[in-house]
Amino acid sequence: MNVAGRHYRTIWLKEGDNRVVQVIDQRFLPHQFLIEEIATSDEMATAITEMHVRGAGLIGAAAGYGMYLAAIAAARSDSFDAYLAAAFGRLKAARPTAVNLAWAIERQLGAIALGQSPGEKVRLALEMAKAIAEEDAEHCRLIGRHGLDLIQQIASRKGGHPVNVLTHCNAGWLAFVDHGSATAPIYAAHDAGLPVHVWVDETRPRGQGSKLTAWELSEHGVPHTIIADNTGGHLMQRGEVDLVLVGTDRTTYTGDVANKIGTYLKALAAKDNNVPFYVALPSSSFDWKIRDGLTEIPIEERGGDEVKHADGWSDGRQVEVRLAPERSAAANYGFDVTPRRLVSGLITERGVCEASEASILALFPEHAP
Amino acid sequence: MNVAGRHYRTIWLKEGDNRVVQVIDQRFLPHQFLIEEIATSDEMATAITEMHVRGAGLIGAAAGYGMYLAAIAAARSDSFDAYLAAAFGRLKAARPTAVNLAWAIERQLGAIALGQSPGEKVRLALEMAKAIAEEDAEHCRLIGRHGLDLIQQIASRKGGHPVNVLTHCNAGWLAFVDHGSATAPIYAAHDAGLPVHVWVDETRPRGQGSKLTAWELSEHGVPHTIIADNTGGHLMQRGEVDLVLVGTDRTTYTGDVANKIGTYLKALAAKDNNVPFYVALPSSSFDWKIRDGLTEIPIEERGGDEVKHADGWSDGRQVEVRLAPERSAAANYGFDVTPRRLVSGLITERGVCEASEASILALFPEHAP
Repeated sequence: MNVAGRHYRTIWLKEGDNRVVQVIDQRFLPHQFLIEEIATSDEMATAITEMHVRGAGLIGAAAGYGMYLAAIAAARSDSFDAYLAAAFGRLKAARPTAVNLAWAIERQLGAIALGQSPGEKVRLALEMAKAIAEEDAEHCRLIGRHGLDLIQQIASRKGGHPVNVLTHCNAGWLAFVDHGSATAPIYAAHDAGLPVHVWVDETRPRGQGSKLTAWELSEHGVPHTIIADNTGGHLMQRGEVDLVLVGTDRTTYTGDVANKIGTYLKALAAKDNNVPFYVALPSSSFDWKIRDGLTEIPIEERGGDEVKHADGWSDGRQVEVRLAPERSAAANYGFDVTPRRLVSGLITERGVCEASEASILALFPEHAP
Repeated sequence: MNVAGRHYRTIWLKEGDNRVVQVIDQRFLPHQFLIEEIATSDEMATAITEMHVRGAGLIGAAAGYGMYLAAIAAARSDSFDAYLAAAFGRLKAARPTAVNLAWAIERQLGAIALGQSPGEKVRLALEMAKAIAEEDAEHCRLIGRHGLDLIQQIASRKGGHPVNVLTHCNAGWLAFVDHGSATAPIYAAHDAGLPVHVWVDETRPRGQGSKLTAWELSEHGVPHTIIADNTGGHLMQRGEVDLVLVGTDRTTYTGDVANKIGTYLKALAAKDNNVPFYVALPSSSFDWKIRDGLTEIPIEERGGDEVKHADGWSDGRQVEVRLAPERSAAANYGFDVTPRRLVSGLITERGVCEASEASILALFPEHAP
């Protein structure tokens, strides 16, 4: 999407030197827009581990390009296979819980194995890296197209008044290669000239809403308003939300949705106020094995210091401040699970379906048991 | 309650000089515990306006002592009545929306009018100031006693395991003269030796939970854990909350509860998970005129900068940091309304009742139409 009027993706090959990958270094957003050059797979592993790049789709694409960089170096080494195996191990350990990371690496290993010479292996790795990134962008584009219909229906009811969409966390293009999942229908609507306004949950404790989603929307010119996470229910009571649209870290094939902590509270408020609650996801975010999201999806618990602190911009630099008493404990659960009964529908690259086993498997019959 | 092992109230007469009032200056909590000396009604007006003191009960007590300080100065002036009227006007304007402020001043005007001489007026003003503060503390103590029964019932079911109470914002002793409203049953349980643990919502954007409630509980030695406001629903799904206990800024005589923004979301989650949701309030927080809280209680909208910023402690000083893009808009609603259907009960100084007109008026028959 656009940054200061120019189109960007989150990851791309450097112009004029396709042995170098460039990414937006997201650690400094929204305060500084910095582009990082990555020339080795180890640098890519570091960028993933230290969250210069984050988000399911982008992590997959980064791993794909990381394997390509590893192949370049392997082709120059004494033993292609030994070099690649070492690089592959480091990349795979960069964030062990990210499903897309392992998946992208597996695809690269399969592609590289087909090459008959080091040079051909490098060429195949480059093609696969591009394909992974393209597929991610294309799936998000299709989510945008299907979600656009939904926004269009609401817009036609509202007769020219803006459609108010509430979103939580960052399921934006920064988490993918382009478009995003939850944001894709929003960008599609905005670009089609529909009046759309986004309520952006700030998303404590890490602030992905106020830091990333607000920045994205601001740069692309989409009207938006940041709110404390406490606010969505009140807005829905007052009729100020037409649609809740969120992403997901993992959705069971039965329709239970794991997403950033706090999503469940918004789903409850949407239900209580008859506001449609939709989840946008590429099919890579489905878990085809788990039946009961509430009891079976493990919830990551992070350090309490994220809750007791906030970092932001002060006097021209990034500063971390402590918000709470030093000796108070804090707990930090990363995700919660929204049960399917609260979900109006799922928006995938193949279309919209209900949050039910039957409806999901009808759209993805190849995953039926 | 206790601070570093010593009992404090939020406001008191200076020992050895009862023409000086002392208060805890809450602007610097939890980072610094500072006591401010206030010797004039104008200084008291400033302390209220600039939120050195805040919270319904405490604002009432502060206004009561402010009128006493005004009476002292008036007795030394040429015209008692003219001086008092001027001071009274400045105090009353300190925070025009606080119901307890006007109410305390009215009570003081009535008391002072009974005095036959300037000296007697000062004496009556002192008595009334003490009475207002005592009544606030006593009402909160009684709320604690009635709420203790509730916690005791849960504790006996849990057989020695801690009772987990979730609270939102600061309805603690810092908002009153002592004990607090929502915290009163917690302190009563803790002091009675019941094992109790508190989940403290940080309460963005102003952070009254992480700054004030966590500090209170920490100083009094009550086990507690700070959580992002997004977290309560997940904890309730996992059975980690036995009771939600909050305060209120205004509750209609029909049982609708206006409280800090985000309270409604916790009430929805409590309902969805069969967790009891109680509201603790002295009867001064009832609105005896409004029937429908959702449509009739005005919701204060504050500046968006509170949402885009956070202040905290860094390098030995208080620092404000910007969290969001400079040009993004932010909205900041101070309160929301929890409809009575989500409220399990109200804990008042006269006992516990249902959140219904019949039950509330049975406890407070003098307000029946």
